[in-house]
Amino acid sequence: MKLITIPDLKAMIRQVGIDAFLQQTLNALEDAFEHWHEFSKSPRHATHYPQGVIELMPCANRDFYSFKYVNGHPKNTQQGRLSVTAVGLLAETDSGYPLMISEMTLLTAIRTAATGALGAKHLARPESHRLAIIGTGAQAEFQLMAMQPLFPITQVTFYDPDPQAMAKFARNLTGKVDLIACTSIEQAVAEADIVITATAAKKHNQLITTDMLKPGTHINGMGGDCPGKTELDPELLTQCKIVVEYLPQSREEGEIQLMKELPVYAELWELVCGQKPGRENSEELTLFDCVGFALEDYAVLRQVYQLASDLGIGEEVELVPSLDNPKDLYGFLMSP
Amino acid sequence: MKLITIPDLKAMIRQVGIDAFLQQTLNALEDAFEHWHEFSKSPRHATHYPQGVIELMPCANRDFYSFKYVNGHPKNTQQGRLSVTAVGLLAETDSGYPLMISEMTLLTAIRTAATGALGAKHLARPESHRLAIIGTGAQAEFQLMAMQPLFPITQVTFYDPDPQAMAKFARNLTGKVDLIACTSIEQAVAEADIVITATAAKKHNQLITTDMLKPGTHINGMGGDCPGKTELDPELLTQCKIVVEYLPQSREEGEIQLMKELPVYAELWELVCGQKPGRENSEELTLFDCVGFALEDYAVLRQVYQLASDLGIGEEVELVPSLDNPKDLYGFLMSP
Repeated sequence: MKLITIPDLKAMIRQVGIDAFLQQTLNALEDAFEHWHEFSKSPRHATHYPQGVIELMPCANRDFYSFKYVNGHPKNTQQGRLSVTAVGLLAETDSGYPLMISEMTLLTAIRTAATGALGAKHLARPESHRLAIIGTGAQAEFQLMAMQPLFPITQVTFYDPDPQAMAKFARNLTGKVDLIACTSIEQAVAEADIVITATAAKKHNQLITTDMLKPGTHINGMGGDCPGKTELDPELLTQCKIVVEYLPQSREEGEIQLMKELPVYAELWELVCGQKPGRENSEELTLFDCVGFALEDYAVLRQVYQLASDLGIGEEVELVPSLDNPKDLYGFLMSP
Repeated sequence: MKLITIPDLKAMIRQVGIDAFLQQTLNALEDAFEHWHEFSKSPRHATHYPQGVIELMPCANRDFYSFKYVNGHPKNTQQGRLSVTAVGLLAETDSGYPLMISEMTLLTAIRTAATGALGAKHLARPESHRLAIIGTGAQAEFQLMAMQPLFPITQVTFYDPDPQAMAKFARNLTGKVDLIACTSIEQAVAEADIVITATAAKKHNQLITTDMLKPGTHINGMGGDCPGKTELDPELLTQCKIVVEYLPQSREEGEIQLMKELPVYAELWELVCGQKPGRENSEELTLFDCVGFALEDYAVLRQVYQLASDLGIGEEVELVPSLDNPKDLYGFLMSP
């Protein structure tokens, strides 16, 4: 059984290159969504606390089973800790034996960004070149980097109430794109072709209203992803063509959680498989209400398992016993 | 974050002693069941395949969150592999950070045996000295060892259709108790005070019927633990005082799955907390319909985490990143 630690994953991404890695993730996601009906799916299992949420996200097809453990504790950053950490496991279904345990804090950021990009690929205007990011926390740079291969992004406007988070974002991306630090959300989104919201506060926020946006804008709503946590004005939702990942989960967790009767245009797989068109004209407002779905973790864990095998990365650890006689667990335990 | 591998757990149990370790597990279980109402509980999440089942079993209280990944693939043993393997995780709820990943194949056998013993403690006659075990696979020795401190066991009758599994059981326990290998289930259970069924076949079996048992027998039904997998004659169930761990899960997975209307006397915590008496006379047939509940994994993971800390066992692995700036995940990833 393979163990992929933080240093392992950093080494893997350094060897592959972050751009190529993100492209591989996007490909893996497209492949997974194309085979949507071959997966067993369920809403994630969530345990809620006053200070945050802890979730298990399983997903499986005939060959592989995966799950992710992930938490969301917005106030962790006040103690210098991450608000989201994650660990994942990949197993083979034939035997049920686990194959790999991997860090997924970094992988969650990467697969979330790639999923956002996949949504935008089908919903944003192809010529989109002005991107706005609201919330420049741990997710923000990945979101931009996943978009860049798909759209001719020349300008990024960004806003976060935390000036240090803004400075960090600018520092990491200097020289890669034209960056405009904004003093308000209104300013950041006013001219944007694509708007990404990725904030952490667990409340019903109304960061963006319809009047702030020009026609034809696409929104990737990444941070409305938990019961009690939304980012957009409900009225704005009524103006948008809305696409989600997996409706039973998004109804509970997404931007649409407050509007149970609101029609949803499609699940993402329907666009990926060509069963429904994505954007149909240059005027419509579109929203990818992205909450994060277990299929995405499956896709990136498969990618990492393959890379780990190809590149010889990751220690083999003995987390499952190897017995001469599989019925003699007791003898195995007591042997020296 | 601590990693407890198979060699780590073997070292831990060697250092503590298997009897003391089992006693600690029993104590940890009693403590957990005494605080039943402080835990968030849910039936396990199961994904079924023709060849087996893969499950996630989460459980949490205010302070700690745990889950176990576990599979059940009865035909694995034909390829020299275990039918059940497991891995567990313990996290602190304050931050949501994982604290430990541990092997749980061995721990599952141990906590299952200790749970069975806890049920028998409340349901079997205190003077029980003849124990019968049906199914001498990976579980069997642990089941006996967990019972021994609680009952004056002098004789163990046992039966398994696999002669090699019988020989293995006898070899492991020679000298520890009077062992009688039987040629049929009838013979094994005829004089027993306590009967343990622990078989792996995934089907509706009828290993034991009422007429095989003498009055006052207690049954620990360990192997009826999955939809489509039962061990006892349904008619026998109607003759027993039945105790389960957690009714919503046991209704789906336990011996009682075939008889939706059958009254269940109690959940185990009610006996542990003294809210209901266990056995009330020496004539009644009692059944602990034990399917394995996530609370038991919680208890043993807490025990192992404490021991690992006390004894300095388990490697610290970097599965969660330590960042100077928790919002700068991208900078952390790209740093050398």
